[in-house]
Amino acid sequence: MKRVFVSQIKKMKEESILVKGWIYKIKSFGKIAFVLLRDKTGVIQLVLDDEGMIDSVKLEASVEVKGIISKNERAPGGVEIQVKELKIIGKTYYDLLPFSINQREIEASLETQLDHRYISLRRPDKRAVFKVQEEIVEAFRKYLRKHDFSEIHTPKIIASGTEGGSEVFTVNYFDRRAFLAQSPQFYKQMMVGAGFEAVFEIGHAYRAELHNTWRHLNEYVSLDVEMGFIEDENDLMDLEEEFMKFLFQYLSETCKKYLEILKVKLPTIEHIPRVTLSDAQKILLEKYNKKSPVGNIDAEGEILFSRYIKDKYDSDFVFLTKYPVSKRPMYTMPDDENKGITRSFDLIYKGLEITTGGQRIHDYDMLKENMIKFGVKPNDFGFYLESFKYGMPPHGGFAIGLERLTMKLLDLENIREASLLPRDMSRIMP
Amino acid sequence: MKRVFVSQIKKMKEESILVKGWIYKIKSFGKIAFVLLRDKTGVIQLVLDDEGMIDSVKLEASVEVKGIISKNERAPGGVEIQVKELKIIGKTYYDLLPFSINQREIEASLETQLDHRYISLRRPDKRAVFKVQEEIVEAFRKYLRKHDFSEIHTPKIIASGTEGGSEVFTVNYFDRRAFLAQSPQFYKQMMVGAGFEAVFEIGHAYRAELHNTWRHLNEYVSLDVEMGFIEDENDLMDLEEEFMKFLFQYLSETCKKYLEILKVKLPTIEHIPRVTLSDAQKILLEKYNKKSPVGNIDAEGEILFSRYIKDKYDSDFVFLTKYPVSKRPMYTMPDDENKGITRSFDLIYKGLEITTGGQRIHDYDMLKENMIKFGVKPNDFGFYLESFKYGMPPHGGFAIGLERLTMKLLDLENIREASLLPRDMSRIMP
Repeated sequence: MKRVFVSQIKKMKEESILVKGWIYKIKSFGKIAFVLLRDKTGVIQLVLDDEGMIDSVKLEASVEVKGIISKNERAPGGVEIQVKELKIIGKTYYDLLPFSINQREIEASLETQLDHRYISLRRPDKRAVFKVQEEIVEAFRKYLRKHDFSEIHTPKIIASGTEGGSEVFTVNYFDRRAFLAQSPQFYKQMMVGAGFEAVFEIGHAYRAELHNTWRHLNEYVSLDVEMGFIEDENDLMDLEEEFMKFLFQYLSETCKKYLEILKVKLPTIEHIPRVTLSDAQKILLEKYNKKSPVGNIDAEGEILFSRYIKDKYDSDFVFLTKYPVSKRPMYTMPDDENKGITRSFDLIYKGLEITTGGQRIHDYDMLKENMIKFGVKPNDFGFYLESFKYGMPPHGGFAIGLERLTMKLLDLENIREASLLPRDMSRIMP
Repeated sequence: MKRVFVSQIKKMKEESILVKGWIYKIKSFGKIAFVLLRDKTGVIQLVLDDEGMIDSVKLEASVEVKGIISKNERAPGGVEIQVKELKIIGKTYYDLLPFSINQREIEASLETQLDHRYISLRRPDKRAVFKVQEEIVEAFRKYLRKHDFSEIHTPKIIASGTEGGSEVFTVNYFDRRAFLAQSPQFYKQMMVGAGFEAVFEIGHAYRAELHNTWRHLNEYVSLDVEMGFIEDENDLMDLEEEFMKFLFQYLSETCKKYLEILKVKLPTIEHIPRVTLSDAQKILLEKYNKKSPVGNIDAEGEILFSRYIKDKYDSDFVFLTKYPVSKRPMYTMPDDENKGITRSFDLIYKGLEITTGGQRIHDYDMLKENMIKFGVKPNDFGFYLESFKYGMPPHGGFAIGLERLTMKLLDLENIREASLLPRDMSRIMP
């Protein structure tokens, strides 16, 4: 007999079936029990009328059940299964669950839930987050492949830090000191130059940042894009804007069920405003009397400015553009027209930066000079710099933090809720 | 004027166009030059009749070219462009290329080519390897998503080794000792148990193996699958076999152009034979007088046995099944019917192991006992073992080494040719 999934049962006749899953809830009245069975597609009521069988079921045991579909208006969903055979195929070995998962909410701290991820994820609403996340990734890939970008996989063990700074994890690589890549920055540029022209990568990025906040992870999934033969950074913002429109459309089609579970309504995106950083700083000062640090906007400023944009343009998104040279990496293209300014941007989504991007320097001499200006030794970037000797075209790109995008899209409070198994300063388990 | 890609030109009229790309070859006759321009889609001949323009072009510079399409039977592909304007947009800074890339073959060792990956990949045939690899990944994802597997992303920084042994890289994680995951084994099992039921992951795996051979990489891309509610390991082999059939069909449809460039003909897969390890050892001894190590077949044996299978069944693939307990990890399900034997398998493709898989132990007590039998401390696997207390269903999975599959499919001689930027014992650059 072939297994039937819970989501298929509603459309079936009153026939014999085999279902498999976990025991989600037990309401026992001695000689009869109503038991909820959960599989990856949903939850259904089982009716058990055998005392031995009733005694055998334990919460969260996994079971194989044969029975007959029966319509019952009082059952959740209007259907239940009259059980004929029940076999425990995955036993339980606990006295008490770490926390109850079949109530309205989990009554445990986020930390406790993360400690027992294999329990908390059994709730359909916790798992729904990752089903949406999966479709975000799928949309990203689909959109870029449709536009002839190549998907690449580049090494995470590298010989020198990519983004500079000390915030890098060290690896013992056959008794040599190596690092975990902070981003695929150098490699995605290199692959553009190597003839792929337009590439993307979905992979882990590592930041040894000494931040333990609601919006930081030390290992995260980065959605990276790099594109050659561009005119300037506007091509990149155009690309990201079009992707965002596509994404929201795609999710509204593919994630209906999960968005309902999570009670999330997706807006449609019309246009993402683009505001220069200095204009944004001025607006913050004039409207909110909010002072900003030199060449940047702090976390509070991002939230305020997002609110301003939402009121004025009804947009959850805003591009902040033209950051100063001092706030961007040494490979960022300077803006000809504005001294000290770069062709760069951030994308802010509901008050949180989810993307950093920009045009890169493609000329060997200019890049070398810029390294020296930034106080780094060109020799420390041997192969990277070397790759610019051979006709590197104008190019640029951006990266989206997958967990940040997921968090904001689903209105989660902590980025850890958007990571299956988060890594932060104090957590490397499970 | 919108950029036109080389692959589109053949279908166009004799009209004005803008193309971009790199200078691939220059044949100059003083007042006239025939120049090949290469973009990501192909190569086309430019006709230059301006001496200043001719002097300005250098091999591998990137350029923007405006001109008029002109049919010419003597031009490669029957079409060329009469150039009106040529702009160098990416300058060159070299005296000599590290090696020539516009001849029949690259006259440089693999090591030299890898040192200058940003040059060697500019050849269409080198890049074609990764376009096929991209489609392998796409087929894997497509096939599994169609069968309701969830794509997951699990941490690569972990607190304890997964596959046992000392072949693990250590990371300094905020002054704690952590490791790079040898596989997502524990996590993919955990996610099956956490309610996803069937999962896959496309991610890096790290092996600090002291092997520097044609078939080993220390960082590679692993195509991992794990599936709950199975009967036994045959369900897994069925799944992999069906995937392989799908893969070859999919590649024959999507990679025609690249397979032609690489001169590779894809066979169709009818059925993959399944032979127990002990039968395979017997056949090797009887047919080839080849002795095998206890409970295994060595690399030479794999090649000989593949040849035997090819002759007998016309199959490039063979599943070797039922490995002994001593040769499999502690989480492998023992075979009830054969003492000392496990429900495990390898998939051998043209003489090379590309997959290891099997059913896993899902019962907490049994797993704990097995750990003790294997001489490992259950406490060292705290959260992993703990996750088996809550009704873990019967399950199993497998992993395919992406670079190994690519290498065999494309008849490459060295696995490094199937990695954009390989990592081995001596290489962490570029």
